[in-house]
Amino acid sequence: MNGAECLLRTLVNNEIGTCFMNPGTSEMHFVAALDRVPGMRAILCLFEGVCSGAADGYARMLRKPAATLLHLGPGLANGLSNFHNARKARSPIVSIVGEHSTRHLRYDAPLSADIPAFASGVSDDIHVVRQGDELGDATLAAIGAAVKPPGQVSMLIIPADISWSDAGEPVAAMAFPTREEAGDDAVHEAANLLRSQQNVGLLLGGTALTGAALEAAGRLVSATGVRVFADRNAARTESGRGRFQPCRIPYFPEPARQALAGLRHIILVEAKPPVSFFGYPGCPSDLLPEGCEIHHLAKIDEYGPSALAALVHECGCGKSHTERNTQAPTPLPEFGDLTPDTVGAVVSALLPEGAIVSDETVSSSAPVWNHLLRAAPYDHLPVTGGSIGQGLPVALGAAVACPGRKVIALEADGSGMYTPQALWSMARESADVTVVVFSNRRYGILDVEMRRTGAEGFGPAANKMIDIGRPDLDWVMLSQAMGVPAARAADTEEFRRQFSHAIGEHGPRLIEAVLAGS
Amino acid sequence: MNGAECLLRTLVNNEIGTCFMNPGTSEMHFVAALDRVPGMRAILCLFEGVCSGAADGYARMLRKPAATLLHLGPGLANGLSNFHNARKARSPIVSIVGEHSTRHLRYDAPLSADIPAFASGVSDDIHVVRQGDELGDATLAAIGAAVKPPGQVSMLIIPADISWSDAGEPVAAMAFPTREEAGDDAVHEAANLLRSQQNVGLLLGGTALTGAALEAAGRLVSATGVRVFADRNAARTESGRGRFQPCRIPYFPEPARQALAGLRHIILVEAKPPVSFFGYPGCPSDLLPEGCEIHHLAKIDEYGPSALAALVHECGCGKSHTERNTQAPTPLPEFGDLTPDTVGAVVSALLPEGAIVSDETVSSSAPVWNHLLRAAPYDHLPVTGGSIGQGLPVALGAAVACPGRKVIALEADGSGMYTPQALWSMARESADVTVVVFSNRRYGILDVEMRRTGAEGFGPAANKMIDIGRPDLDWVMLSQAMGVPAARAADTEEFRRQFSHAIGEHGPRLIEAVLAGS
Repeated sequence: MNGAECLLRTLVNNEIGTCFMNPGTSEMHFVAALDRVPGMRAILCLFEGVCSGAADGYARMLRKPAATLLHLGPGLANGLSNFHNARKARSPIVSIVGEHSTRHLRYDAPLSADIPAFASGVSDDIHVVRQGDELGDATLAAIGAAVKPPGQVSMLIIPADISWSDAGEPVAAMAFPTREEAGDDAVHEAANLLRSQQNVGLLLGGTALTGAALEAAGRLVSATGVRVFADRNAARTESGRGRFQPCRIPYFPEPARQALAGLRHIILVEAKPPVSFFGYPGCPSDLLPEGCEIHHLAKIDEYGPSALAALVHECGCGKSHTERNTQAPTPLPEFGDLTPDTVGAVVSALLPEGAIVSDETVSSSAPVWNHLLRAAPYDHLPVTGGSIGQGLPVALGAAVACPGRKVIALEADGSGMYTPQALWSMARESADVTVVVFSNRRYGILDVEMRRTGAEGFGPAANKMIDIGRPDLDWVMLSQAMGVPAARAADTEEFRRQFSHAIGEHGPRLIEAVLAGS
Repeated sequence: MNGAECLLRTLVNNEIGTCFMNPGTSEMHFVAALDRVPGMRAILCLFEGVCSGAADGYARMLRKPAATLLHLGPGLANGLSNFHNARKARSPIVSIVGEHSTRHLRYDAPLSADIPAFASGVSDDIHVVRQGDELGDATLAAIGAAVKPPGQVSMLIIPADISWSDAGEPVAAMAFPTREEAGDDAVHEAANLLRSQQNVGLLLGGTALTGAALEAAGRLVSATGVRVFADRNAARTESGRGRFQPCRIPYFPEPARQALAGLRHIILVEAKPPVSFFGYPGCPSDLLPEGCEIHHLAKIDEYGPSALAALVHECGCGKSHTERNTQAPTPLPEFGDLTPDTVGAVVSALLPEGAIVSDETVSSSAPVWNHLLRAAPYDHLPVTGGSIGQGLPVALGAAVACPGRKVIALEADGSGMYTPQALWSMARESADVTVVVFSNRRYGILDVEMRRTGAEGFGPAANKMIDIGRPDLDWVMLSQAMGVPAARAADTEEFRRQFSHAIGEHGPRLIEAVLAGS
């Protein structure tokens, strides 16, 4: 059995059954092996950033890795920015990167590049396979590193000759590690704080923003009055009506500090102390009030849900009422212009229960989020690492991971242009994704950031770097060019009609929501 | 004066008057300064790989740097694969990368990343500015590193607070270094070899594939019978009728070895010993015949043209006839299907004199190249580093560098999908580029590579990873979506009409050449 087949069988043995790929010459044996090894769904992407972003979306939904297969250093380079987001999401991903054959490496051929240097910016776990008989074990080590809590992108760099030479037998399934339970001391300490009647906050991140963990947090609120916050960049949050809704820390530092004001203690659950997204002149990056003490209930790699359950038990509030989001559904807006607010209202009002929302709305995000609080229960996937161009790939990956659920990609027009190739893979895979493009024809967030950084009033030359109209991007044609049916809407009635149609069908569809004034 | 303005003025003082950019929050002061500092043409690109590829194309034509401005680690990451190509082209580029403000760095905010780690894969010269008063000097050092022969991508990483704080005065113009002359010994040695009547070859790369250097090589051929070869991945080659045409070493190792067969000596002029592009099972990477001795007339960072002139002088053949390409123009093909051959014939027959051809034809490349040998004199820009997705950006950069010349981008449909966003910048800048998309709806080169790597006959699962139809990409819509007028052609007559129309107008235009059988 050649190396490629050994690799593929070891992946499949370990329940890695999806690979997002953009292969080249050095990966041909892996591609050829797809016909000999059942159990691997290979999904072609026309740009590597789609592969890495899709694997991130997949991992966020299933909490298990997909593989990616990329071609040499430049192929990996194109995938890095979405691997950056995956790193911040702590998504487990096994990233396979083909390398020149061992003998060819010394020649510095045109495609030679320092693959580990590229990889080191997004992964602490880089395996360069040197011999065929190492391949099965190296694959298992890479899988192990990917799934080791809290999860990461592991890199498996495989020279072409290792793929085409004999590599022995594939390795059998390993037991995936589970997250460690938080220590009793941490639970006692947190319980004491909650009983202390001081101003105490819980900050939830990681896996503590879903299911029973949210229920437990809601119980603690009603029993102890603790204030509960959510990491706005956490990988996945279950949100919407009927669920407990923590306070998502705002994006800009001033309202964020306001939200956290008064806290004397913050207890972290799979989260880091909150900091502002950017630094600004004369503005501290720390968001916590001065003197606020930091405590850990569950560290980043520990299991927040069980820690919260233990805390509920310790506080004796297992039978307490669970605080829940009891907001009424968003009413459909009156006939009128499309704005981030009215688009958000329509999306919220019509969002099907159990939907997955990939949210890359950037400058439109605040009003959309406010409406989504009133939507039917859904899963929210934000931009974890701030690198835009992940919204469409993450939506693709989530759709592949959860074929029975509707995925909604809420996408800023500027951000969507980094990885529009995701649309083609959505079309090919019949991914059930409704894409809503917020078309304001500006890098709108930079209007705000320009003022915030203290840059003096900007003139026409600067404006030209923020204006992405001239020429206008036609998202309907862009989408149709890649096989995804599309339509444009410029008022609430048309948008409602289009969105309603899209969610009533299966398969990908794009709506360009042309915002008023754009 | 703040740091951003000091940076901008230092660039302009040093004749760096073009910046391809995709800025974000940390770069807002640079953007704001564009309205205060005359002399910088700022070109917005919607994806960073367009910035890096365009700067490469610009540098290849003018042999002086443009700047790029990218946003933090992920922005740089998106630019890396075309910086890889620029590195292999030895293109001077000053890559400015914004970083979080110094105080903000320690917080590991979402967008924090190891920028030098990413940069180290494409640059040996990385400046991280730590203090405002270093900025002018650091900028000058980065420019100096970029233009130091043979040229490279230098990285200037600037924290946001350095941009917004006082930075003192900009630095005045430096004298750009010139390439060193090759040593007399090297010229004597080469002359002796040429006189020896042994089987001797000259391999030209770098700046030795243009103008007087080619003339000199042609003279040496007629006077001494030396065989002259060209590095197929050199940054820029002046080609077409009436010029001396070296033998471009073929892509695949077998014909390459055949081309070089019999050589007992090879004299390198700004070139490295030839190696195959990929390694294959049982196939050596070295292309030179066994025992062939390697000599250097001009090293990579020396000046090949003057070394060749000295060699002509030493050989006493200054008055000899110059070998030239005397092929007749390509006849226009008869009415029929579009194939790489017939598209190449039409392009060659109609190519305007002085055109610049950005060539990313990949699997269509051999027949196209053969026709281009019979075209009017033009400049040829190939994929230097093998990372596809550079053809459209390089065309954009070349058009910005040489506004009076027609640029033709010959683009494979698979390759074009890595950086289609270049079309938007072409439209905005009215870049005079005619894009011809070779639409075969396959990663056609992988059909060949699959066989060559010895992968056994491939089945439907593998085929699906090579087939980029299903759904078909509609390049006409894709182009129009980004503001570039476009049309489709499916026979030679229609293609001739479209191509003729495109080269007769100014401004960008795309033709999708649908190849027969696709």
